[in-house]
Amino acid sequence: MFTGLSAFPLTPVSGNAGIDEKAYGRLVHRLATTSVDSIGALGSTGSYAYLTREERARVARLAVEHADGVPVIVGIGALRTRHVLEAAEDAQNAGAAGVLLAPVSYQPLTDDDVFGLFEEVSAHLSVPLVIYDNPGTTHFTFTDELYTRLAHLPNVASVKIPGVPADPEAARARIEHLRRLLPATVTIGVSGDATAAKGLNAGCDAWYSVIGGTFPEPALALTRAAQAGQPERAERDSQRLQPLWDLFAQHGGSLRVVAAAAAHLGLTTPRNLPLPLRGLGAKEHAQVAAVIEKLQLHA
Amino acid sequence: MFTGLSAFPLTPVSGNAGIDEKAYGRLVHRLATTSVDSIGALGSTGSYAYLTREERARVARLAVEHADGVPVIVGIGALRTRHVLEAAEDAQNAGAAGVLLAPVSYQPLTDDDVFGLFEEVSAHLSVPLVIYDNPGTTHFTFTDELYTRLAHLPNVASVKIPGVPADPEAARARIEHLRRLLPATVTIGVSGDATAAKGLNAGCDAWYSVIGGTFPEPALALTRAAQAGQPERAERDSQRLQPLWDLFAQHGGSLRVVAAAAAHLGLTTPRNLPLPLRGLGAKEHAQVAAVIEKLQLHA
Repeated sequence: MFTGLSAFPLTPVSGNAGIDEKAYGRLVHRLATTSVDSIGALGSTGSYAYLTREERARVARLAVEHADGVPVIVGIGALRTRHVLEAAEDAQNAGAAGVLLAPVSYQPLTDDDVFGLFEEVSAHLSVPLVIYDNPGTTHFTFTDELYTRLAHLPNVASVKIPGVPADPEAARARIEHLRRLLPATVTIGVSGDATAAKGLNAGCDAWYSVIGGTFPEPALALTRAAQAGQPERAERDSQRLQPLWDLFAQHGGSLRVVAAAAAHLGLTTPRNLPLPLRGLGAKEHAQVAAVIEKLQLHA
Repeated sequence: MFTGLSAFPLTPVSGNAGIDEKAYGRLVHRLATTSVDSIGALGSTGSYAYLTREERARVARLAVEHADGVPVIVGIGALRTRHVLEAAEDAQNAGAAGVLLAPVSYQPLTDDDVFGLFEEVSAHLSVPLVIYDNPGTTHFTFTDELYTRLAHLPNVASVKIPGVPADPEAARARIEHLRRLLPATVTIGVSGDATAAKGLNAGCDAWYSVIGGTFPEPALALTRAAQAGQPERAERDSQRLQPLWDLFAQHGGSLRVVAAAAAHLGLTTPRNLPLPLRGLGAKEHAQVAAVIEKLQLHA
């Protein structure tokens, strides 16, 4: 389950209103029919951090319901350990095949805080856990030493790393180094879509993919090329998507761009992010639409 | 209300258990009897970001109840606008004299996101609002231009700035610059306790104070010296507290240090922070205790 393409859909939230459950069900079903290897519900792209306990429990149930048997990994991060434990319980009750935990912070966290969090949560789980390293949103920086301590906890099955170096040799060295540190049972998944091909080519087992949640076909093609031992094809697939990576860089991350893309494709209503997050403006929307047309990404 | 010493108490949370309401009531009452100018409930020191809506509403009510008429400013920050509006409603229903709003982030916020948040919230308020600028926890950086736009919104009454330059002339220039930008009705309050004397001496109207919540007497003495036009005395008071500022710097902020101090003074139980935040270890606790004894800060 923690190998291949893990696709992270948006959770459409209409401004200050609630979740667009119909659109969400369709987004998840669309991924299932594209034969992604797993679905990452309530990741950063799924706006987990903005939702109430009840909303998250509901979204987890909807994801499993519409996934047609494709394993669903549910994000359980929260600022407070108690709320993480509640989210884990709700995810398991919803039928999650695994959970994904980021050390979300308000006060800066120490390594001991984060180890204590994962220790307590992993001890309470009956499904496998993915360590979610996303310094851009959590403002917590993992050390290799902490990765290693966490990877030996019960139920830890994968590490979602934030990216790999741009140089292929450096990327390979990085993944080989991590592989030596981590138990053989723990997979390594790359995120940061722009470096996904480099990560997979360097030996990552999985791609935890933002674009996979909205554009599953090209993400799957890239993943299958790397898995088939065709690194040049994977790299070409990634280079073809460079205009998307440029948009991500231009807009401080992927979320606003995929939200605009999902709206452009008619998968959601135009407003689909939880306020205070504003979608892109009209001009930026047009740029996203132009890239979708140019790359023929409309399904 | 948005002048002088605003004292921010801890909200004691016993590990994974709930709020220690008795200890909280005592902490607030202690501030009221020390004649602070206002009490800042549910600031960063009050762990607002970790609590549920119900807990925050309860804490706001407890604060007003135990404040003996001293104005209570309640923190209403949350990741999602809808939850900020709920917290504002609950704070007002609890009897808050004002509210404090930080642009808490998970996904990075744009200036337009933050303006939209404050615009919507300020339009719904019946009490004055303090703009809370704390880049260390929110990871959002205000520009002077955004300060100015926000300060002209209805109900905005004060800006809580993160600190002032260490050089007195630069500090004065900074506050004079801000003063020219902001409406005369909007006060400027310094935070970052180590720079409080410099901030007050440079013309800040208020000190939004962490140590004021646990050590109100020395914070009040420093504030009154600056207000009485005795900048050297205020600066001496601050320099006397240098061992505290050193501990703050050493432990990545003030929270863990004042939590240890409150426990040492017997104001709370030993575990008083919401997990995953661990208190200081035994060795660091002993350092905090030694500083309290050396500075004779035990009430």
